[in-house]
Amino acid sequence: MKATAELQLIPIGEGVSVRARVKRVVELLAGYDFILESHASGTDIEGELEDILRAIEAVHATLHEEGVVRIVSFLKLETRTDKEISLAGKRL
Amino acid sequence: MKATAELQLIPIGEGVSVRARVKRVVELLAGYDFILESHASGTDIEGELEDILRAIEAVHATLHEEGVVRIVSFLKLETRTDKEISLAGKRL
Amino acid sequence: MKATAELQLIPIGEGVSVRARVKRVVELLAGYDFILESHASGTDIEGELEDILRAIEAVHATLHEEGVVRIVSFLKLETRTDKEISLAGKRL
Amino acid sequence: MKATAELQLIPIGEGVSVRARVKRVVELLAGYDFILESHASGTDIEGELEDILRAIEAVHATLHEEGVVRIVSFLKLETRTDKEISLAGKRL
Repeated sequence: MKATAELQLIPIGEGVSVRARVKRVVELLAGYDFILESHASGTDIEGELEDILRAIEAVHATLHEEGVVRIVSFLKLETRTDKEISLAGKRL
Repeated sequence: MKATAELQLIPIGEGVSVRARVKRVVELLAGYDFILESHASGTDIEGELEDILRAIEAVHATLHEEGVVRIVSFLKLETRTDKEISLAGKRL
Repeated sequence: MKATAELQLIPIGEGVSVRARVKRVVELLAGYDFILESHASGTDIEGELEDILRAIEAVHATLHEEGVVRIVSFLKLETRTDKEISLAGKRL
Repeated sequence: MKATAELQLIPIGEGVSVRARVKRVVELLAGYDFILESHASGTDIEGELEDILRAIEAVHATLHEEGVVRIVSFLKLETRTDKEISLAGKRL
């Protein structure tokens, strides 16, 4: 099932600047077969729902392995059956 | 990896009342090995991250099979490595 | 206009434990004419939309005065015209 | 206090397509002294926190006047004291 998503991941206990960790998240997502659009409040994702959810699990696991102690992710997921969903189709 | 989560799912195109669909979401989540706490803005979930993400995928799929045309889900996910995460431990 | 809301505030740059700051947020909200229900992923709020938004502004300002350098808040807001909205009415 | 925000507003009871209402939200926000960046999962906003919150209240009120029965808004708010916050500064 095709989906669009938005991921904003916040590493906690990392100090005030979280830029390096956020860049790493986008780098990890870029390893998947997704269309990605990063913006000031997160990264929009287009792909298979199953792949998106698996990628988010892997992102949490990798960041913990790389030393992040606590992670909170905010995720929006959208699916629909009446037409093919896409980031392009959701733009105004 | 253990996680806590919050899921708020909004079926779109269903009319103003979405209560029956939201009840169905909670019923579906109750079929998993989770600790669940529903409140006015969603359902808090404690379980394995992998299981939570798989359950959310199944919930989208099942609701679409049952006739919901469009679904937007808002999900919060939290994991940590310094101690066992739990809903009980996050209460004030 | 009556509204229900959910606020989850994350102080950034505070170390791994954010419990004291989160307790302070709930204490500040308790100074308003709201119905409050805290849970593992935030605090549900019932009140006038104008008051809720003004309270959130004051919470950001107060936490910054008390030393928090960076704050990200996740807020859900709901209003409706067909019937009186309430936290009690949104429970399953 | 300067802030960045992201607003995603979902009109409920409007049918499967919500595009006209979402366009109206962006049109209303454009009437304020904000920097706006719309993307597939919402609209990023830069402005004074007070103005952003007042605008969101006005958007709910206007959409209800224009016939929307039920509205759920998802809002992210960020403020910081160590440097000037901006959408441009949050991009990777």
